[in-house]
Amino acid sequence: MKKLIAEFIGTLWLVLGGCGSAMLAAGVPELGIGFVGVSLAFGLTVVTMAYAIGHISGCHLNPAVSIGLWMGGRFDAKDLIPYIVAQVLGGIAGAGILYMIVTGKAGQEIGSFAANGYGEHSPEGYGMSAALITEVVMTFAFLFVILGATHSKAPKGFGGLAIGLCLTLIHLISIPVTNTSVNPARSTSQALFVGDWALSQLWLFWLAPIIGAILAGVIYKYLSPEKAE
Amino acid sequence: MKKLIAEFIGTLWLVLGGCGSAMLAAGVPELGIGFVGVSLAFGLTVVTMAYAIGHISGCHLNPAVSIGLWMGGRFDAKDLIPYIVAQVLGGIAGAGILYMIVTGKAGQEIGSFAANGYGEHSPEGYGMSAALITEVVMTFAFLFVILGATHSKAPKGFGGLAIGLCLTLIHLISIPVTNTSVNPARSTSQALFVGDWALSQLWLFWLAPIIGAILAGVIYKYLSPEKAE
Amino acid sequence: MKKLIAEFIGTLWLVLGGCGSAMLAAGVPELGIGFVGVSLAFGLTVVTMAYAIGHISGCHLNPAVSIGLWMGGRFDAKDLIPYIVAQVLGGIAGAGILYMIVTGKAGQEIGSFAANGYGEHSPEGYGMSAALITEVVMTFAFLFVILGATHSKAPKGFGGLAIGLCLTLIHLISIPVTNTSVNPARSTSQALFVGDWALSQLWLFWLAPIIGAILAGVIYKYLSPEKAE
Amino acid sequence: MKKLIAEFIGTLWLVLGGCGSAMLAAGVPELGIGFVGVSLAFGLTVVTMAYAIGHISGCHLNPAVSIGLWMGGRFDAKDLIPYIVAQVLGGIAGAGILYMIVTGKAGQEIGSFAANGYGEHSPEGYGMSAALITEVVMTFAFLFVILGATHSKAPKGFGGLAIGLCLTLIHLISIPVTNTSVNPARSTSQALFVGDWALSQLWLFWLAPIIGAILAGVIYKYLSPEKAE
Repeated sequence: MKKLIAEFIGTLWLVLGGCGSAMLAAGVPELGIGFVGVSLAFGLTVVTMAYAIGHISGCHLNPAVSIGLWMGGRFDAKDLIPYIVAQVLGGIAGAGILYMIVTGKAGQEIGSFAANGYGEHSPEGYGMSAALITEVVMTFAFLFVILGATHSKAPKGFGGLAIGLCLTLIHLISIPVTNTSVNPARSTSQALFVGDWALSQLWLFWLAPIIGAILAGVIYKYLSPEKAE
Repeated sequence: MKKLIAEFIGTLWLVLGGCGSAMLAAGVPELGIGFVGVSLAFGLTVVTMAYAIGHISGCHLNPAVSIGLWMGGRFDAKDLIPYIVAQVLGGIAGAGILYMIVTGKAGQEIGSFAANGYGEHSPEGYGMSAALITEVVMTFAFLFVILGATHSKAPKGFGGLAIGLCLTLIHLISIPVTNTSVNPARSTSQALFVGDWALSQLWLFWLAPIIGAILAGVIYKYLSPEKAE
Repeated sequence: MKKLIAEFIGTLWLVLGGCGSAMLAAGVPELGIGFVGVSLAFGLTVVTMAYAIGHISGCHLNPAVSIGLWMGGRFDAKDLIPYIVAQVLGGIAGAGILYMIVTGKAGQEIGSFAANGYGEHSPEGYGMSAALITEVVMTFAFLFVILGATHSKAPKGFGGLAIGLCLTLIHLISIPVTNTSVNPARSTSQALFVGDWALSQLWLFWLAPIIGAILAGVIYKYLSPEKAE
Repeated sequence: MKKLIAEFIGTLWLVLGGCGSAMLAAGVPELGIGFVGVSLAFGLTVVTMAYAIGHISGCHLNPAVSIGLWMGGRFDAKDLIPYIVAQVLGGIAGAGILYMIVTGKAGQEIGSFAANGYGEHSPEGYGMSAALITEVVMTFAFLFVILGATHSKAPKGFGGLAIGLCLTLIHLISIPVTNTSVNPARSTSQALFVGDWALSQLWLFWLAPIIGAILAGVIYKYLSPEKAE
């Protein structure tokens, strides 16, 4: 149960911090943080939580991560559903807090929030297949790095930095394409508040990250299996 | 006594570095560092001091941190008041040095300095309840990360990075809302130079961070208690 | 063979991440990541892969790195050609994926992709000799840092951070001069898609990095030889 | 002798990287790296060299650092002059390479290079006393962090990151005031190429950093003396 509370709080922080930086600070004229700042923010939510709750729950914060770790032989199948539920609920709670803050400015609405999308809902107009490729490949790389940086042969303690900074990197590349998901819990949390198109495009942001995660689990396990864990 | 001098110097550096980057460098046309640079600067004051004085005083630099660590069972109640006094005095000293530098440019005044505010004094016009939620939640996350990253089960040595980068993250999210406090000593140091509205809004920047810190102390202690310290 | 697959995937990620951030996100109006973001992205591809595959293949991702490590007495001559082939092929695969994403936006063409160039193809118009000096010196520094940070006397585990951030630094300096190569595999991957001038200038981005790498290998070995490895 | 070569190469890299990023990349329209990028670049020259030559020479790269370490009881007086000579010569060599690159663009001159200045030569017009206070306090903090992060009680291996990121922080704060020195070798290297006003203001960028460094050495030694070194 403590593991699930940790995952809930961690995913809350990922959504509040990452999507929050996008909604509150990215577009402020002259001084705004832009995509660089949003990329840093998403990555740092993971860096910070990795050191805070890594020793409690492993700090997945993302259904695709839990699935990829399971495929890679590092996570127990029986914990999969509870983890995913805790992550989705945590994401929604983070979105709820963000909603209260955003609408605390007179006259401000959430618009498309920080929802993920493709086609006319891609920030820069990338189509569905570009979005699909991007989300598959980015999640593949994310899980590949997670599996490697937490491997018993990798330097101890650096995993949180490498993994969080990988999420920063992924955002630096792909915000213009899909607003960057690689995390179905993050996508769901925003889509529920936006409704409409965000819900009808949500399938891609479950499907593609899960495919990428499974591929990474299989390939990394082949390249560098863990002896016993 | 050496601990208190260390806290004094550390908090001086936090205010001089964080608020200094905001006053001196954020808004320079074309080349200015914007909110990304200010966020980095605040975080790096903590990263740098964590490695410099962590082994002397623990490097709190913030009354909310001292209170949260006390609630989490990591800090002795009898040191609480002396630490807070040293932090507030250090912050004021940092603000004094910054005042001398800022006014060393012909015709420049401090304006609203880097004071924290809400309503019409929020950088982007967020109201009091949005400010209150933001400061409570941000300080909660800050203390949650501090308690986790300095836990005996967390990787050794990474605490300073995780905690400092958490402060960077908090600023990436919330500068537009309250100019970001999460630190009553930092807020007080600026309010004393600005007077007026900054002093009359100062209560929020003591109350909210302390509430957030206490909540984090209680919850983290439940999730992952330390055996003996 | 697993080493070569790791180098292939790693170099794919370097090109997709680094060049991808440049093509997709650098120039977005208002919010784009600019050269700072591209510099971070290139560096983070190395940071992330260093922790993911460092224990598998050493994570070179760059023919100049393999050559410099060989000159420095840290890498076996017999692995040189296979590593370089895997790196070039990985780079091309990364460029291919990027091509699919970029052209997934209606009406978008790759233009000069993220190819390296000098003279009229230098981003800011620097001539051939400036480009040659820049690429030699930057690659020298890169290998010098690699040889030092992976030395047996250097702190354990920090190599990936130091080396990746060195690549970030190199980009912060030299994108305007040559679009920054220091990596013949990265240059080749882009030139093949652009053809024309990019192919005819490609010689410089093999020659200069290799010269820089050899110099670094020789000098570092003199300054701080490894006893036995 | 190997120590001096290491200091020479390291300071060359500091000047080429830090001042180079400022000259080549800071002001590029739309995509330029601005003061944030220059701050990162200066800091990363130190991060990278710390891991590359820390175990050879200690990686001072700065006369004020050598003097501060000597005052703090960490560096032998007899090495002081040779280190300072190597640093100044390395800085000049870095400036020379940068000169060749910058002037490799048709019609480009070095202007005020990346020289440090005050009054009408301060980037944002800060007067001499603001410059003096700034350089003293910034160098004080720099040495304070260096002495702390390399202390035997500080976490092992993190010194290079903490110290390099401290230089980043210092630049985030003070580029607008003096173009940031805290390093007489860096200032001298630029002033020699600019001549004129840069040479006549150079005294401040030797005096102030040395005062700051001496203060830090004395105070840190009092707060946390090393037993034996």
